Amino acid sequence: MEIRFAKREDTPKILRFIRALAEYEKLSGEVVATEALLEEWIFDKGKAETIFAVEDGKEVGFALFFHNFSTFLGRAGIYLEDLFVLPEYRGRGYGTALLKKLAALAVERGCGRLEWSCLDWNSPSIGFYKALGAVPMEEWTVFRVAGETLRTLAKQDS
Amino acid sequence: MEIRFAKREDTPKILRFIRALAEYEKLSGEVVATEALLEEWIFDKGKAETIFAVEDGKEVGFALFFHNFSTFLGRAGIYLEDLFVLPEYRGRGYGTALLKKLAALAVERGCGRLEWSCLDWNSPSIGFYKALGAVPMEEWTVFRVAGETLRTLAKQDS
Repeated sequence: MEIRFAKREDTPKILRFIRALAEYEKLSGEVVATEALLEEWIFDKGKAETIFAVEDGKEVGFALFFHNFSTFLGRAGIYLEDLFVLPEYRGRGYGTALLKKLAALAVERGCGRLEWSCLDWNSPSIGFYKALGAVPMEEWTVFRVAGETLRTLAKQDS
Repeated sequence: MEIRFAKREDTPKILRFIRALAEYEKLSGEVVATEALLEEWIFDKGKAETIFAVEDGKEVGFALFFHNFSTFLGRAGIYLEDLFVLPEYRGRGYGTALLKKLAALAVERGCGRLEWSCLDWNSPSIGFYKALGAVPMEEWTVFRVAGETLRTLAKQDS
């Protein structure tokens, strides 16, 4: 098994993984990402990075991440947005290998933390993350403004 | 009132706001950020941006943010890490003005979302955010690996 960074020409593969994850979560209807958008935001604007787990020349898992920031630590962290391993390749350590690679990248880049989000009903993943030593930030909730609400709030800016 | 972006020479002011927020949250002991670290990670490496609310030439509030990424939308968002208004300037709309400025920046830059986290016991803020139209992502929990646990996980990378 090999882990490699995705390049611009891998954009179609990244989109396939995003769609596969959405399908797994039964949220396919929410995917509006296109190859053009991903190429622009990941490779032109550099707002995220992607690594693949590769077995026999085939990408069997992916992790998409970006840098977040801790004001208390005064430095960036790594935030894992998506982690997905093709169902037929589960249970062979690809997911763990991707997480370890991100931990190694965080240390290499001088980052203070590695973070990600998990759905509260996903007990198997939560157990796995806790076994790795991850701590759930249970007292925090993310608030989101999007779509028309975002545009309305923006228009009120004086 | 004016809103302006922080520049490199504002680093000491940024650190003072971070410390004021930590003191307010009774978490001062967790602040290990220094001016040198903030200057490196914000201004050399560009991992976060800061805006100030300014009244009569005095910075009375700040917001520190970075770009996160939505794979479903295929584009970046804006994530507000810290928002703080000096206690003696509360209730005059500075916090709302900073939030609206971030919403405007998100729209201007083509981002899909504006997000931030709030402590679950902070009912006044939660009410305020919901009134703005923000939706709590209640089914998600952030997991964090840091310090020795991060280094151990990184070392296991093969």
